[in-house]
Amino acid sequence: MEIELYLKERKEMVDKALDRVIPSEEAYPGIIHESMRYSIFAGGKRIRPILTLAVGDLLNQDLSRFLPAACALEMIHCYSLIHDDLPAMDDDDYRRGKLTNHKVYGEALAVLAGDALLTLAFEILTRDCYNKPGVTLRVMQEIASASGTSGMIGGQVVDLESEGKSIDANILNYIHSKKTGALIRASVRVGGIIGEADEQQLGRLTRYGECLGLAFQIIDDILDIEGEEEKIGKKTGMDTWKEKATYPGIHGIEPARKKVKELYNESLSAVEIFEARGEALKILAEFLVNRDY
Amino acid sequence: MEIELYLKERKEMVDKALDRVIPSEEAYPGIIHESMRYSIFAGGKRIRPILTLAVGDLLNQDLSRFLPAACALEMIHCYSLIHDDLPAMDDDDYRRGKLTNHKVYGEALAVLAGDALLTLAFEILTRDCYNKPGVTLRVMQEIASASGTSGMIGGQVVDLESEGKSIDANILNYIHSKKTGALIRASVRVGGIIGEADEQQLGRLTRYGECLGLAFQIIDDILDIEGEEEKIGKKTGMDTWKEKATYPGIHGIEPARKKVKELYNESLSAVEIFEARGEALKILAEFLVNRDY
Repeated sequence: MEIELYLKERKEMVDKALDRVIPSEEAYPGIIHESMRYSIFAGGKRIRPILTLAVGDLLNQDLSRFLPAACALEMIHCYSLIHDDLPAMDDDDYRRGKLTNHKVYGEALAVLAGDALLTLAFEILTRDCYNKPGVTLRVMQEIASASGTSGMIGGQVVDLESEGKSIDANILNYIHSKKTGALIRASVRVGGIIGEADEQQLGRLTRYGECLGLAFQIIDDILDIEGEEEKIGKKTGMDTWKEKATYPGIHGIEPARKKVKELYNESLSAVEIFEARGEALKILAEFLVNRDY
Repeated sequence: MEIELYLKERKEMVDKALDRVIPSEEAYPGIIHESMRYSIFAGGKRIRPILTLAVGDLLNQDLSRFLPAACALEMIHCYSLIHDDLPAMDDDDYRRGKLTNHKVYGEALAVLAGDALLTLAFEILTRDCYNKPGVTLRVMQEIASASGTSGMIGGQVVDLESEGKSIDANILNYIHSKKTGALIRASVRVGGIIGEADEQQLGRLTRYGECLGLAFQIIDDILDIEGEEEKIGKKTGMDTWKEKATYPGIHGIEPARKKVKELYNESLSAVEIFEARGEALKILAEFLVNRDY
């Protein structure tokens, strides 16, 4: 399988769907839609929606059934970045090499653009006409619980509270598995729920998502130390400067690399049961683990 | 009907349900739940959820079916207040006589508490076990569209953009009908959707909600000019100071009072078809229109 081509095609599918469901700048009041679109189309890799679609591919189903959830996941990821970048939070001026939302539109609109993307994520799911209402509700429950205080927001809260403090491996694990891990795990699970995977399949997909989510965050930490600013699109070395606890910071850089390798191998074993159909998920894992941006 | 007793009972019902569905301060990470609870239990009048329940009373149905939506509406109202009060937005230190969320918990947690309340609003609806999935999805669609950029957020955006500018009656009408009106209208309609009201009934309930929502906002504007600070729980005269366009500002105070009276009368006619069962909605309208806080 040509991974680059596969990713490109899936990304285009997601981008087109996002363009359809987010109101245009022409729709009143235009400025808020412009602000939402600025961040949504600021060069995201679409990892979460592509994971959802890849499970659709694996289960050999019509991908249009997976697109509303795929878009919702990307919108929630995007809203969390806009709010995280605010001066009161991480205070970042750049993201993926472009000015952050509040640097372009001001803080008030950045707060509202985030709120609007979160609201729209749920709204497009309520309009989902491809799936049974019961399935859509399960999808929404999965996404809401992964995004709330027992998921992404919980991780962000503990991350904020821990800045400048010395924290142990357990708390770091909590931050990683919640702040980034929960939504990545949900992206894979949501694919399984829409595709009506059985219990065993859903269990394996869940484990795959968990391994990938944690590996993804550890790689982010490693890249903050060793990555090239131009490729990543933001300043490196910021974690040390902000006294943020990171996996390589607590365990060392070599153990961090070893952990990524272990998680990668476990993610592959988790999808063994799908045999050849699991190929896309395996190649995706390899691609995400070997990224340098 | 004893309106004070009715309101007290319904408010208690809503408060108990909110207390059940919002995680306790004991649930990790405690600080975010404390912050969410601080604002939710800061003395709100529970107008939106009470409207939803009143429609349930009108349709003579088991109120437990209406409680998840009632709580969701209050959480969304509350999140919008937390974000509106932020320094980048209205920069308010007090709300209902208490310090605003960011004055107590800091800006970062206030942003996250708002995000978390919005997320939880949808999450509790996905767990709604009283209604058919199709009904719950319609309820969520109603709430999401009333809260997004074609509803509450849209109104807030235009309000922000208009500060310090001279605006015309049309734009003011847009701000009012969206910023406050949309969620009040939705609170009434959601009751009709859960109670499976027929088309004609839903049309009348919608009109009732629209009249009440607009009247409510005009009264807020009047109170900002004439109200007593102690009763309202925040500084009066702020609209003039912030050069905010208001109904009495554009049309004059007497025409504003006359408009409230007209809207009140129209809200009563709208629910005439329900005869005696419409009594609660009529008394609620009277109560809301005659409030001095």
